[in-house]
Amino acid sequence: MSAEDDLSRDAFLDGQIHVFQPKRGYRAGVDPVLLAAATPARSGQTVLELGCGAGVASLCLHARVAGLSLTGIEVQPFYAALAQRNAVENGADMTVCIADLRDLPHDIRARSFDHVIANPPYYERARSTASEDEGRDIALAGETPLSTWVDVAARRLAPKGYLTMIQKADRLPDLLCALEGRLGSVRVRAVQPRVGRVAELVLVQARKSGRAAFALEPPLIMHQGLRHERDGESYAENVLKILRSGADLPWSR
Amino acid sequence: MSAEDDLSRDAFLDGQIHVFQPKRGYRAGVDPVLLAAATPARSGQTVLELGCGAGVASLCLHARVAGLSLTGIEVQPFYAALAQRNAVENGADMTVCIADLRDLPHDIRARSFDHVIANPPYYERARSTASEDEGRDIALAGETPLSTWVDVAARRLAPKGYLTMIQKADRLPDLLCALEGRLGSVRVRAVQPRVGRVAELVLVQARKSGRAAFALEPPLIMHQGLRHERDGESYAENVLKILRSGADLPWSR
Repeated sequence: MSAEDDLSRDAFLDGQIHVFQPKRGYRAGVDPVLLAAATPARSGQTVLELGCGAGVASLCLHARVAGLSLTGIEVQPFYAALAQRNAVENGADMTVCIADLRDLPHDIRARSFDHVIANPPYYERARSTASEDEGRDIALAGETPLSTWVDVAARRLAPKGYLTMIQKADRLPDLLCALEGRLGSVRVRAVQPRVGRVAELVLVQARKSGRAAFALEPPLIMHQGLRHERDGESYAENVLKILRSGADLPWSR
Repeated sequence: MSAEDDLSRDAFLDGQIHVFQPKRGYRAGVDPVLLAAATPARSGQTVLELGCGAGVASLCLHARVAGLSLTGIEVQPFYAALAQRNAVENGADMTVCIADLRDLPHDIRARSFDHVIANPPYYERARSTASEDEGRDIALAGETPLSTWVDVAARRLAPKGYLTMIQKADRLPDLLCALEGRLGSVRVRAVQPRVGRVAELVLVQARKSGRAAFALEPPLIMHQGLRHERDGESYAENVLKILRSGADLPWSR
């Protein structure tokens, strides 16, 4: 599956970054862009992305915040190689390691990071049907429980460091229970397709040794209008700024 | 604290019900009205309210749905007596028992209910300062953990019965973790004071033996406008229908 013509070169943030990814298999959509937008990184900080795939979230963050030191972990060698290549092509200071979350290399385990970010696979294997593409399978149906993702993130965070995650909304209870006792100052922002609709995704932030009360932020509403009424662009204005201009998505405080 | 002139007689739902409650101590606001609005009870069903206080939630439900058989549990004898009196005054078929959640009377433990509703005390004692009023203290700072409320509710629900709760938004993680493994088909609706604001309350629904995925509903927005701009009425139209006309607050599906 690694032949060059099985890859597409896709623009994100209106061409601020370009990313090679497989034409078939797991392909990045808006989710990693939202994840990067919600990550409150500042210039000079260190960022660890768990399960970085082709690197879209980290590279969107690089496009917004200059001078980050980025590290990606990816269990699938093919995606890890793509992420490393994409980092070079986009001029990002990013090192990608092929590793399983549960068995990080020693030099990663010896470090701590100002930010950990993750867009863990969305479907539990038991609930999904097998796909023909193994890469897509692992990306969409990885067997590592959310509690492991949170646990590894918590261990790698520097004091007062931030975890930022995006996940399907129906796994919010799992995620909140996984955070309990591991990280604090948890905040959740629902991502709704439109006003009045059930959330499809949740952005979750937590802080190492954070002691603030849990907060449920106002939702991010992706599309204008109450329903799909015309073809073409219908993103809300603030969402367009995130997806096209690489604006950040600030948390209340 | 039980002398008649220490009581006020307050109208709810634009006068559809009237409730005696102490002038000082815990006094019902919009929260029990929202709880009743979010409870999907139908005529002829049985409802158990845990920690019913002066009975406002159950009586609002009685005002909307004819022919309910209501049971209230209240640990404070003074509030239990008020709830029983309020039930009689409003013509509701409601029996109130003085009991601790953890030690329900045998005849309650022998029954199951189509609905359990609860508006548990909002502050953990450890986080709040002691109030001068013991009744208010217990109502606002009860020591019974949310997991006990959920556990008692789960045991008392009939098959496919619904639990409906309202709680401060910052306790949502506790509540979701308490529901885990006890009840299913969990749905959460944030209650935001205005558009763009952090939620203050959450309405939570769960179902006995429910197997539907967790769902995060669109928020209920209490007030019009982005900020407080004038004195007087500013409730959103759908909220006014709930607070004044006793309309229900339907869940998506």
